[in-house]
Order: sequence, then C-alpha cells, then structure tokens
Amino acid sequence: MKIARFQKDRAVAHGVVQGSKIIEIRGSIYRRFRTTDYAHNLKDVQLLAPTEPVQIWQPGMNFAAHLAHAAAITGIHDLPKTPQPWVKGRNSLNHTGGDIVIPKDSGGDVHYEGEAVAVIGRECRRVTEKEAPDYILGYTCGNDVSERAWQKADNFMWRAKGSDTFCPVGPWIETEVDAGNLEMVVKLNGKEVQRACTKDMLFSFAKLVSYISQQATLYPGDLVFSGTTGATSRMKPGDTVEVAIDGIGVLQNPIVAEK
Amino acid sequence: MKIARFQKDRAVAHGVVQGSKIIEIRGSIYRRFRTTDYAHNLKDVQLLAPTEPVQIWQPGMNFAAHLAHAAAITGIHDLPKTPQPWVKGRNSLNHTGGDIVIPKDSGGDVHYEGEAVAVIGRECRRVTEKEAPDYILGYTCGNDVSERAWQKADNFMWRAKGSDTFCPVGPWIETEVDAGNLEMVVKLNGKEVQRACTKDMLFSFAKLVSYISQQATLYPGDLVFSGTTGATSRMKPGDTVEVAIDGIGVLQNPIVAEK
Repeated sequence: MKIARFQKDRAVAHGVVQGSKIIEIRGSIYRRFRTTDYAHNLKDVQLLAPTEPVQIWQPGMNFAAHLAHAAAITGIHDLPKTPQPWVKGRNSLNHTGGDIVIPKDSGGDVHYEGEAVAVIGRECRRVTEKEAPDYILGYTCGNDVSERAWQKADNFMWRAKGSDTFCPVGPWIETEVDAGNLEMVVKLNGKEVQRACTKDMLFSFAKLVSYISQQATLYPGDLVFSGTTGATSRMKPGDTVEVAIDGIGVLQNPIVAEK
Repeated sequence: MKIARFQKDRAVAHGVVQGSKIIEIRGSIYRRFRTTDYAHNLKDVQLLAPTEPVQIWQPGMNFAAHLAHAAAITGIHDLPKTPQPWVKGRNSLNHTGGDIVIPKDSGGDVHYEGEAVAVIGRECRRVTEKEAPDYILGYTCGNDVSERAWQKADNFMWRAKGSDTFCPVGPWIETEVDAGNLEMVVKLNGKEVQRACTKDMLFSFAKLVSYISQQATLYPGDLVFSGTTGATSRMKPGDTVEVAIDGIGVLQNPIVAEK
C-alpha cells in the first residue's frame, strides 16, 4: 500500500495511492484508518513530505563503497564498528517537486545523496533488532543534500546537510517492500549517477532503529535514512535530480539558486 | 512576565506566573493571548517544558573559559571564529522536576552544563543581528546534560547530549530580562559548582539567532542555548541539580539511574 500526504486547495490530508488516483483516508496512518469516497487525480494534488517527523535520523557512514569518498570530507578512514547516528535539521524537510535551493552564500558545491528511508510507525524505546521491523510503517525515497565545503569547514553539519530544503523525502510511503533488497537509482537530468542496494548497508534499518532506540525515543513519522554509497557530484541551478526506488516510486526535485 | 506551560489533572495549558499563582491564558503565547479567571496554586500543577520546540539549537563552544575543559573532550584547541551550531535531539526534552536518567549502558560520567536559553517567538529566516531580538519571546534556564565518554567515543553527539531526559528546560519563560547580563548559577546538592554571565558569551543570542537563520528557519518555540562555561563535573543517582538565573527562576532536576 502507498500512503501519501498531500495538499488540495488549502486542505492537507493523507491518502492511499491507487494508479493515477489518490483516495482520501480518515483516521491516523499510525493507528487505524479507512478509505473514504473522496478520490483525486494524483496530478491535481501537491504531494507533501509523507510525514511530519519529530526527528530525521541519519546513520553516519553505512556503505563500504562510500568510505573513500567520505574519508576525503570527514578525515575518517575506517569503517564504523557501530552505527554513528546524527540528527538532520527538521527545518530542511522538503517534498517531491519542491525546489532544492542553493544558498546564496554557498560556493555551490552542493551534492545529491540518494537514500532509502524507513518511516517509524509506532513510538519505540529499547527495541531489539528483531522487534524493530514491527515499529516501521514503511519506506520512502530520500535525498540527503550536502554542501561539501561547509561539511569540511564546520564542526557540525547543521548547514552542510541541514539548510532549508536540503531534505527531500517522498513521493509516499510504501508499506509492502523487502527493506533488505531495495534498489535505489539517482538520476541527474535523466542520467544515472548513483546506484545502491540496501542489502549492502553495513547496518540494516532494523539494526539502526534498534541502536538509536537504546538511548533515544523514536516517534511515529520519524525518518531513518539508509546512508549513501559511492561518490557523489555537484548539482547546479536548472538541474533536476531524481531518487527512484523499485517498488516505491520517484522523488524528483529541481535545483534553483537562492534569489 | 513569566509564561509557563503546565499540566493539571489531564489538561495541558499555558499560564502567567504571579507569585505563588499561575493564571491560565487563552490564545497563543506566540501571537495574542489574554488571561482568564482560572488560577491555580503553582504547587498544585506540574510545570512542563515551557514550549514544544521543533528544534533545540546549541551554539558549540561559546565561552572562552570553557575552552580548556572542552578541548580535552573535543580535541579542538582554538576559539571558534563563528558560531558552530548543532541540533540537540528533540527526544531529550525534559522539564523542571523531571528525572535526569543515567542510561544503564553509560559508564556514568554524566555532567551538568548550566545555560541560559533563548525562546524563539516568531518564525525567522535571514534576520540580521539587529533584528534578531524582535524574534525572541524570552529566556529560560537549560541544562545541556552530557555523557562525556560517549562525547569522546562517538562521531556525533546524538546520545552524548541527546539521550532521553538530557535536555531539561524551564521553569518558565521570562519575557523581561537583559539577555546580555544574565547571571547563571548551577548548584549540585545545594553547593555552587558553576557560575557564568551571558555578557561573556563569545556570540550573543542575537548573533546566534541571526547566524543560524542565514541557512535554517527558526520556528516559534525553538530553543537556542547559550553554551556553557568553565569545567563541569559528574552527577550521580540521588543527586539534585539546579540551574538558577537571576530574574528568571530555578530549574531543578533529580538524577536517577535507569531501571
């Protein structure tokens, strides 16, 4: 099932996507809901970020193939022995179709990082790796947009990865996928620039959720990113970036310069 | 004016504190509100964190007198030339009277960091240092609780400073204080262990808010901490820690071991 959050005229609602239609639901996507008789054409609604997370969790380095590229930025040359979570700024949340804005005081070295994203369905604390999947509602696509000069220069990633618009997620949550075998492809202006499979994650989504939950409560709607892989490259104003995951959908964003 | 958020029986409300009473308000503390005829004895209500922030911002190193102590943990020996903001986990939010819980898998080297905290009153983006005070509603007391072994061992501070209960703030927001001259005192079991004045901040609250707002939107209720000063020490289960600021009030928390 594909669960989306959308805006039509001035109203915001959740709905279930079926083909080219979106069927409005009543109730909570985290507890109990039913579909209604209200259907819209997908092309007539504005899809929003599929949840309103309390927090956006990133795993740190999580693909061996990303190590060489990451080490040049972070100076850390060893694979991590545990997840190294961090919190991406909530202000950076964005949605499919939303502009990724290159800040005017950035030198412009702004990269995509295509990722799969787990969506928390139930509050959890101190869950085991085995229990963790029960607390995940589904999966979506994400782009951990990164300003590489700021990432090197600053002590923390508040603006390198947390500037406004730097966290597109969507287009919706798919509840029936194999989280251990999601094929993710990034295209820049239609050309493939990045490819990964979640089977190559150093720490699985279940492990990440369990690990974070040992010290921090995860809330319904919270997002847990997979980490990215390989090398990444710069996006320029006028470009379009797509993160596509087989069985989920396509997250597409235009790149614009800040006015 | 002292604006508090509190719980009485099962209802949560905001109120204005006058002496030993709290007067319920109607409306939004960020826009327009009026007091009502409902008054409670302060001792009969449970004070909550005074806002429900979207984000909790920390400034990085912000007192020269904290440099030597911080350098032993962070390995950074120079004073920062700009603020070095970072985002403290929203899950860690706590209130006056709330237990600070020492995680059972911590070695126990958990320290207080007494701070003053600015409360954002209006959404802001790209405000100047001169404009920033207009976007601050008031100030409260905060404790940036820190697990020093995790702070050294991890790549990020997600659990060192973001474990559940590690962010007590309160007891309320004071709207009429001189933000540049707040005297802050921390007491551990009644004995003074830390003292600072906001006039010694390397970057003022106005500067911090302006700097963060260049890349990240700040929302009503967001918290911006001052940073801490000097050396800090360990808190043990059974201890009580107080952060007191002249003209604001006292934030008091017991320390307990996780069960």
